[in-house]
Amino acid sequence: MSTGAARGTRERLVVVGGDAAGMSAASQARRLKGPDELEIVAFERGHFSSFSACGIPYWVGGDVTERDALIARTPEEHRARDIDLRMRTEVTEIDVAGGRVRARDVDSGAQSWTSYDKLVIGTGARPIRPELPGIDAPGVHGVQTLDDGQALLDTLARTRGRRAVVVGAGYIGVEMAEALINRGYEVTVVNRGREPMSTLDPDMGRMVHEAMVGLGITMVDDAEVTEVLTGDDGRVRAVATRDAEFPADVVVLGIGVRPETTLAEAAGLPIGAHGGLLTDLAMRVRGHGNIWAGGDCVEVLDLVSGQERHIPLGTHANKHGQVVGTNVGGGYATFPGVVGTAVSKVCDLEIARTGLREKDARRAGLRFVTATIESTSRAGYYPDASPMTVKMLAERRTGRLLGVQIVGREGAGKRVDIAAVALTAGMTVEQMTALDLGYAPPFSPVWDPVLVAARKAAREVERQR
Amino acid sequence: MSTGAARGTRERLVVVGGDAAGMSAASQARRLKGPDELEIVAFERGHFSSFSACGIPYWVGGDVTERDALIARTPEEHRARDIDLRMRTEVTEIDVAGGRVRARDVDSGAQSWTSYDKLVIGTGARPIRPELPGIDAPGVHGVQTLDDGQALLDTLARTRGRRAVVVGAGYIGVEMAEALINRGYEVTVVNRGREPMSTLDPDMGRMVHEAMVGLGITMVDDAEVTEVLTGDDGRVRAVATRDAEFPADVVVLGIGVRPETTLAEAAGLPIGAHGGLLTDLAMRVRGHGNIWAGGDCVEVLDLVSGQERHIPLGTHANKHGQVVGTNVGGGYATFPGVVGTAVSKVCDLEIARTGLREKDARRAGLRFVTATIESTSRAGYYPDASPMTVKMLAERRTGRLLGVQIVGREGAGKRVDIAAVALTAGMTVEQMTALDLGYAPPFSPVWDPVLVAARKAAREVERQR
Repeated sequence: MSTGAARGTRERLVVVGGDAAGMSAASQARRLKGPDELEIVAFERGHFSSFSACGIPYWVGGDVTERDALIARTPEEHRARDIDLRMRTEVTEIDVAGGRVRARDVDSGAQSWTSYDKLVIGTGARPIRPELPGIDAPGVHGVQTLDDGQALLDTLARTRGRRAVVVGAGYIGVEMAEALINRGYEVTVVNRGREPMSTLDPDMGRMVHEAMVGLGITMVDDAEVTEVLTGDDGRVRAVATRDAEFPADVVVLGIGVRPETTLAEAAGLPIGAHGGLLTDLAMRVRGHGNIWAGGDCVEVLDLVSGQERHIPLGTHANKHGQVVGTNVGGGYATFPGVVGTAVSKVCDLEIARTGLREKDARRAGLRFVTATIESTSRAGYYPDASPMTVKMLAERRTGRLLGVQIVGREGAGKRVDIAAVALTAGMTVEQMTALDLGYAPPFSPVWDPVLVAARKAAREVERQR
Repeated sequence: MSTGAARGTRERLVVVGGDAAGMSAASQARRLKGPDELEIVAFERGHFSSFSACGIPYWVGGDVTERDALIARTPEEHRARDIDLRMRTEVTEIDVAGGRVRARDVDSGAQSWTSYDKLVIGTGARPIRPELPGIDAPGVHGVQTLDDGQALLDTLARTRGRRAVVVGAGYIGVEMAEALINRGYEVTVVNRGREPMSTLDPDMGRMVHEAMVGLGITMVDDAEVTEVLTGDDGRVRAVATRDAEFPADVVVLGIGVRPETTLAEAAGLPIGAHGGLLTDLAMRVRGHGNIWAGGDCVEVLDLVSGQERHIPLGTHANKHGQVVGTNVGGGYATFPGVVGTAVSKVCDLEIARTGLREKDARRAGLRFVTATIESTSRAGYYPDASPMTVKMLAERRTGRLLGVQIVGREGAGKRVDIAAVALTAGMTVEQMTALDLGYAPPFSPVWDPVLVAARKAAREVERQR
């Protein structure tokens, strides 16, 4: 069976992937062009559309009680807006020359070609799953999809034991550590790096390590998992590293993801050094006038280093979708790039970063100074003023802000936004010292912690000029 | 008695006013120049140095239990750093031509002249105190100084009744309303404006009105106090407006402040349209090479409108002091101006603003569009996601951000910092839609409320271009 292109003046947009980027693009295109002008067909191989993968740890941890709360828009809601969203239908080939995609019904196996005038690729990312003995044993879980989340919840409900091992100590790892603590587990985090949160510099990662230990989490850094050990029943019973064994009733893999670009690569589309699709600022795949891409499957421009990066994050995927949909719908929009902002928490510990770490700056050929300060979230005399540490990097000579990392408690995390905007604007740390930030005793010391860091960084720039 | 200028090569800095601006300047100058190079004499007419006036409502309300917690640095601490701080000593004249100030010991009445090489004026602001019958009756309190705060606390401790009237509904008024609620009072706020918080547009002020009523506060808007009524004991018993009487066991005046520039004006120094001293960006009084000024007694440049404003706020005073002290100490620093950021709270209601209101924009000759949106502090599915309203103003044609106002609950207020930095950088609302702000479900919806407002404002700019 084949769906032909003969549709008069009506164009057809095909969207590959029914999650944030793809469906935001479809929705925005639909806002700009009605069904008489633009037919929209979207393929999603899974059971769910437009869901918040970032919300899965909070569902597993019990903060969110209903799976469906994580679904921003159901297939039916998309269809009600004249988007022909075909669930459980996997695109298996993109024929760029022929302007068509081949899709397979996951349940029946039936395949068919669908032609497109415009194509949007939003294939997302796939979790890294090391090839280890026992990795597929029952009780070992990823947390990428809602199905993954449900499977983990089912395991937690069935499991008598109370010991969980989380493999990986990035965002997913630390968020899953919190979720499992909330479920009453004794949690061990096994981490390949010297410190948790390798998106921070090691000195800041060390603070996260200490705070997590303070929360009762067993932190095993600098340790590579070599095997998942199973019991007589075939289920996981422990995680082995070169040096030790960690008993586990359940194992969660939070090692990270890679761009899912198998299809794109097979179709000859341009792939970057980090494995993601390469686009221009209008999110059009480079060299292809009628193909756009967005979300976790693309690389984005890092505005601070001037280099491409892969940053899988829902907030970028939504922005990409918005830009793609606007352009597909005949408007004009660009996604200028990112500065690398991320925020996370483990219980009451807040962790945030934006811009370059020391090693990123070095790799980009930049010379820099650093400044680290301790301050508080509120005026020191105000109740619940909580300590926070702010580290700032600034370029030598120019004094341009290069990055900020924050570790603290309530009120620490979102302060990174100040730095994110300053990075985007290309501000110097000296300019930042004069920023007119909101001040009142319940909200900030008279010098906001970010300003205190900027003052110290500015002095360092001056000293090392 | 006179202290002469003959001190060899050692210069003398005289500081008028021992609070945030003056003592920050003195401290920073001392950091840069030791006592062999620079003698520092500072005069303060009150009992306290370097205290947080912004903290007084929280001391009165009981969140801060010790008065001394509000004192950042005592006279003794200043003196230990070789700053000759003379308390209870009021400067009564500045002789610019003679390079000297006359000071009076408040207790003894003795006067003397002190010569200066460099002068810093940090005389602060004085509370507006309308000339009304009964305004000086016992039980009527200002909240400008620590002495004021103590007097009010003494009254609260003595008062049997439980009815408080707050006159004024700006920052001080709403913060004092919270303080008195925390002390168990029935609070009535009498306010001259149509809405509370005249630093917001009326539509946003209306939300504050409604939220304050929801907190159990009686809000009397559009009402001018005509008289303070006293009982047989001479103490306050009610506040009268043209239309009504409001019984009161205690009255707090929170009407606002004016720059305290009596001395400066008498000395012929330049005063602006808002009654504050005029300085250059290095905080040097215009036309006077050896006189600096900072804090609540100066006008500052509003970077958005390009006009001078008077914004009494501890965070500015501290920055001014830092800049003044650096320049006095032989370094170089400037205070480029403000964007008008302010944040406040009444119980769990958070109120924030930055940039221009509609009427400011009109007054500055700007044409603009507005966008108001509702969103939440966290992902909608995350526990304790609280609603917030964000209003954004953008210039027509250019799309430049002009102002942001936010009313919400926990997590709303400090989001104004995003806009404060964007205003400083001169960003357009279209540029803001791409800002890489911190996202995770406990911290923000996938589109931060400020981004949602920017998107709507950008569409309005496009529509009205």
